Amino acid sequence: MDTVYVIKIGGNIIDNEAALASFLKDFATVPGKKVLVHGGGKLATQLAARLGVEQQMVDGRRITDAETLKIVTMVYAGYINKNVVAQLQSYGCNAIGLTGADGNVIQAHKRKHATMDYGFVGDIDAVNTGLLQSLLEQNITVVAAPITHDAHGQLLNTNADTIAQELATALGKQYAVQLIYSFEKKGVLLDVNDESSVIPVIDTNSYADLKSRQLIFAGMIPKLDNAFSALQSGVSKVIIGKAEELQELISGRSGTTISQ
Amino acid sequence: MDTVYVIKIGGNIIDNEAALASFLKDFATVPGKKVLVHGGGKLATQLAARLGVEQQMVDGRRITDAETLKIVTMVYAGYINKNVVAQLQSYGCNAIGLTGADGNVIQAHKRKHATMDYGFVGDIDAVNTGLLQSLLEQNITVVAAPITHDAHGQLLNTNADTIAQELATALGKQYAVQLIYSFEKKGVLLDVNDESSVIPVIDTNSYADLKSRQLIFAGMIPKLDNAFSALQSGVSKVIIGKAEELQELISGRSGTTISQ
Repeated sequence: MDTVYVIKIGGNIIDNEAALASFLKDFATVPGKKVLVHGGGKLATQLAARLGVEQQMVDGRRITDAETLKIVTMVYAGYINKNVVAQLQSYGCNAIGLTGADGNVIQAHKRKHATMDYGFVGDIDAVNTGLLQSLLEQNITVVAAPITHDAHGQLLNTNADTIAQELATALGKQYAVQLIYSFEKKGVLLDVNDESSVIPVIDTNSYADLKSRQLIFAGMIPKLDNAFSALQSGVSKVIIGKAEELQELISGRSGTTISQ
Repeated sequence: MDTVYVIKIGGNIIDNEAALASFLKDFATVPGKKVLVHGGGKLATQLAARLGVEQQMVDGRRITDAETLKIVTMVYAGYINKNVVAQLQSYGCNAIGLTGADGNVIQAHKRKHATMDYGFVGDIDAVNTGLLQSLLEQNITVVAAPITHDAHGQLLNTNADTIAQELATALGKQYAVQLIYSFEKKGVLLDVNDESSVIPVIDTNSYADLKSRQLIFAGMIPKLDNAFSALQSGVSKVIIGKAEELQELISGRSGTTISQ
């Protein structure tokens, strides 16, 4: 079974031109089949401010009204996605940028909620792996923007972490998938303020133990729950760590590896 | 030899939501392999105005400075391209949106000119048909945005008519390509003010005759020169006419067919 790396980069890399260039140079050298999933960082918020489009936030979540959807489509699927693709091409990595609408790769529905209207936000229904496989088999790297569609003509703003997880799970049926979430920290830390306190491996047992002893920072719990759910759905390995250490994350010399 | 339709839609369709929806519904029903090439219409100009980015025009051509490139990338490759793809999906046409950077489909270089700097404008060097063929063979319709890249990380704003012609010519080696340029008029007119004066067929001889008698509206000459050049490079047929009459253009009941 071939390995596929599904790598999610965080906003801290997207927002920093030099960090992004350095990451993409590294990423281009990762051998074999790979998928890059990016979010939007602060660029969409900045464009909204320049256009005077007010951003509604409820419980820390952005409400995607029609104007905001237009902005995130322009920034995520247009500006960021195409610049990432062009840069990867310059580093000898043949990449293609996709949203979920392209080739009907990711179908979603507008989020339903009892009391809240999140606007044009998508919850994923299905990943169609046919086209993805065909691209990966042609040694083309997929760069996924966090936009999906509902198959009725509506684009939907969709969480990039969730997209990474859903792509990893779907590809897990045909490939040995390693899902890498990169963020600002070196990995899951025992002490949030100490970058040297990375927990190298977390498995189901040690996770239960760490949680019961309240040694896991609350903000990490959703990420780790998602990681275990991905493993249960057929992803081979989940790694969490710093984008700047991509090679080390892959080789296991850095970050936190989550296994069952 | 399979037929491929390469269809360019003009800004007048892009700018009109109802006209675009109706065109895409028609386009979705065109059987077989097809490529849609779109420009940007007035949307990029409008966004530039909202952002206070001044548009420099020289001899009727837009100068693409860094800020303008950012805007056209967002509008063409993001907003327009992804909305066209999502709409086509809703009409049962499995489409994928591409710029020239995606899969390295269209490589270009920054325009060189003795006295003028057009900015980030691309002149096309090469079309790589491998990925295009693979998509078309999977019955996936390609939607091309007028953005290319230079393989060194630079995106470039590129004329959509030229992209249509270059894609048609490159695909002409493997397919019987029909290149359709849609614009505001019903076809090439003998009298610009009379929509009923469409010339149904122009071939090399009649073109020379029409030109010598100055019966061709000056603005049409570059379009027709391009059409003949496409035919000489292996495109089977070029048709010019109204996007609203797509089915009739394909069946030859409307528009002007240009043949050698």
